[in-house]
Amino acid sequence: MEQSIGQEYMKQSTCANCSDCDRDKKLTPPPLQLPYAEDSSIIKLPEPDMLADQEINFLELIELRTSVRQYHETPLTLAELSYLLWCTQGVKMAMPQGTSIRNVPSAGARHALETYLYINRVEGVTPGLYRFLALEHALLLVQSGEELNEVMVPAFKNPKMVKTCAVTFIWMAVLERMAYAYGQRAYRYLHLDAGHVCQNLYLAARTINSGVCAIGAFDDERLNAVLGVDGESQFAIYAAAVGK
Amino acid sequence: MEQSIGQEYMKQSTCANCSDCDRDKKLTPPPLQLPYAEDSSIIKLPEPDMLADQEINFLELIELRTSVRQYHETPLTLAELSYLLWCTQGVKMAMPQGTSIRNVPSAGARHALETYLYINRVEGVTPGLYRFLALEHALLLVQSGEELNEVMVPAFKNPKMVKTCAVTFIWMAVLERMAYAYGQRAYRYLHLDAGHVCQNLYLAARTINSGVCAIGAFDDERLNAVLGVDGESQFAIYAAAVGK
Repeated sequence: MEQSIGQEYMKQSTCANCSDCDRDKKLTPPPLQLPYAEDSSIIKLPEPDMLADQEINFLELIELRTSVRQYHETPLTLAELSYLLWCTQGVKMAMPQGTSIRNVPSAGARHALETYLYINRVEGVTPGLYRFLALEHALLLVQSGEELNEVMVPAFKNPKMVKTCAVTFIWMAVLERMAYAYGQRAYRYLHLDAGHVCQNLYLAARTINSGVCAIGAFDDERLNAVLGVDGESQFAIYAAAVGK
Repeated sequence: MEQSIGQEYMKQSTCANCSDCDRDKKLTPPPLQLPYAEDSSIIKLPEPDMLADQEINFLELIELRTSVRQYHETPLTLAELSYLLWCTQGVKMAMPQGTSIRNVPSAGARHALETYLYINRVEGVTPGLYRFLALEHALLLVQSGEELNEVMVPAFKNPKMVKTCAVTFIWMAVLERMAYAYGQRAYRYLHLDAGHVCQNLYLAARTINSGVCAIGAFDDERLNAVLGVDGESQFAIYAAAVGK
């Protein structure tokens, strides 16, 4: 098999290289959440403590999980969205060194993902692009309006799904949060972590009678541009459409 | 930020490049499971249909999941191991084009992972290295004996955990199975998929009163050598220790 960029990356991201990282040099860790302006428009989400609790058959949950690509018009409620965010990125405890304990595992508890939501149909929420503030369990409005739709939808290889679902989760990697401890191996861990998160979304959605389809096929450049990130220090890594 | 191999990989694995892949050229897809010798030593696993079914509180399951790094001497039963394998890689249906429907999602249903098990303590199973035959829901003995332990354990950055757990799951990527449809982007999807699988392992283990710790920190070269793979067309991608 000929040498490829992926193969080259794998070779140059050995575990041994991690010892060269900023953590080992005792440099200051990056903050565990991206900053935002004080006058931002914030929507508080229903408290995780108040979320509906339910008994489910675990094996059935696993066996019946499937990718759902077509959705009803029914919107998600804000409580349902809150529940999905809690199950996928909810912060149980902020920790030293820019780490946190969340409802999903992360390499070295670095949790280097930020969740963006492209909302079409959530009760009481103006359609638009939001960022989930995991520490505050709240939504931050990034952008709304018809212009957004025109750039967001075609950034995906399956635009119809993104256009018709209730909400598209878009996970964005903040490289320095992971590279701080793992150098070049960070790119591996960021993808593994995004996989953990998406699997929780699949399972959690099923418990509230909703469907998910994971999305890896997007135009990196276009999607990063819509999120307003540079594609290098921060980049879209994974996404998923959710709907009833 | 200076140019890095990871960044270079991300840039050269855009979605648009996928259209250059073997699937689009209508080449024959690789088989959906690695072959094995007919006279191999095979252990049939208890049928998934017969696995214990249980009602659980989903939110509690998610919230109480944590990484467990210390284990009791208690072994796993073969039924428990069968259950964990079913939840993480169980094949519900083999499909055309080398794809399959499993209990976890995979990009394009390619399912390019093979599960290896480094077994210390599973009732009725000789300790050693096994490969899970997902299609047959069975174990294939790869190697056993003291020599194996001497090379396997030090391949991990935390050798104690691998040495003391009941079984270490090691997911190995068969590159061509994913690259067939996605070219260089396959490396991303392989890691995302491994993340899905590991998250299911975390959750499934909790339902049988067992603990898991995901392991990304291993010596690629040594671990690939133990598995008997070349590290290029096939390579260890993720692992997890499991125990009571």
